Amino acid sequence: MGDLILTTFDWVPQAPRGFVRDLRARWALEEAGLPYRVVGVPFDDRKPAHFAHQPFGQVPWLTDGDISIFESGAILFHLGELSDTLVPTDPQRRSDAIEWLFAALNSVEMASLPWSLCQFSGNNHGPNWQMFDGFLKMRLGHMEQVLAARDWLAGGFSIADILMADVLRLVDRFDGLADFPACRAYVARAVARPAFAKAHADQLAFFAAADAGRIPA
Amino acid sequence: MGDLILTTFDWVPQAPRGFVRDLRARWALEEAGLPYRVVGVPFDDRKPAHFAHQPFGQVPWLTDGDISIFESGAILFHLGELSDTLVPTDPQRRSDAIEWLFAALNSVEMASLPWSLCQFSGNNHGPNWQMFDGFLKMRLGHMEQVLAARDWLAGGFSIADILMADVLRLVDRFDGLADFPACRAYVARAVARPAFAKAHADQLAFFAAADAGRIPA
Repeated sequence: MGDLILTTFDWVPQAPRGFVRDLRARWALEEAGLPYRVVGVPFDDRKPAHFAHQPFGQVPWLTDGDISIFESGAILFHLGELSDTLVPTDPQRRSDAIEWLFAALNSVEMASLPWSLCQFSGNNHGPNWQMFDGFLKMRLGHMEQVLAARDWLAGGFSIADILMADVLRLVDRFDGLADFPACRAYVARAVARPAFAKAHADQLAFFAAADAGRIPA
Repeated sequence: MGDLILTTFDWVPQAPRGFVRDLRARWALEEAGLPYRVVGVPFDDRKPAHFAHQPFGQVPWLTDGDISIFESGAILFHLGELSDTLVPTDPQRRSDAIEWLFAALNSVEMASLPWSLCQFSGNNHGPNWQMFDGFLKMRLGHMEQVLAARDWLAGGFSIADILMADVLRLVDRFDGLADFPACRAYVARAVARPAFAKAHADQLAFFAAADAGRIPA
């Protein structure tokens, strides 16, 4: 393992603070007790060097010595390989954790992201909205069955729970878990972990510190 | 490795044929030359045993002896661990392949799925449509830069290309790659591979065979 450096934006507006995806990586790093530092890349003026690390101009990315990784799922998978505490060692459980890592992104966030974009933009009405709202509710109905029967997705707490809880947390920002009490209880269990609290506070502090040096738009 | 059994629906309507996600697993299995068989689960009447393997009632899932895996990304990752040909062995390249596996799903399909749902449903107008169309075009613009500079995402052909090409192929079903020639050329390169042709023909034949035994609705 080389030095772990997590890159996020050097500043973001108030609305996404506490939800910028570097949180997922910070949370995993804190759970694992791995040493790391966080650096900022310009939010306003995204340079070719940024796209060389993250081809979509987003954040975060992680460097581990010479290896540079984007995508929160891929970063969590990599951190899982560096730590004994983030992924179960039993083969079926390890497979479960990887499968749920993908499912958090592709079966749940795939439905929650369009729903959230409609909510954020105020376009939460009309036929498309009904379609996306129905799509998310269907997926949450299935998650409700899963989470009513277990505390964590793959045996003990794992990288899959970091991703799933973070995806569901954003849904609940718009009260989207009101009809899904097991999903809401799962998020509450996850965010009660000290590693989440540390990661969340650190992200808020990072962007708050940036306000001081920023020229108002 | 145990016996590899891929489960898909026992029948689907005409529209999704050639695009059902078991194709991604079939393609990887053919690329790797791994022995496998394909079995069907009811499309019309999804039982608890189905949800036990795939909690969202979707397909495919793969069983490898006692291990059962859903999510096309997780299945491809598992097959990549069973084969020398699907994931590069060099650490940076392996990391690239995993990162692009996630990116195909979370940076590209995350934008293409809502766009495709709008297209399929005929709700391809209005403010939400403009938002999702803009979101997809932005992501494809970034992919165009990436794919103009390389043949495959992680050095040689890998599981990342199976997923990315399949995601982009569905976009082009609605002519969505018309302004992205490098993306379109990439899909053409990918689907020219014998393993894709075999997987695609096998999926069409599997569902065609099911028509014979089906009582018309």
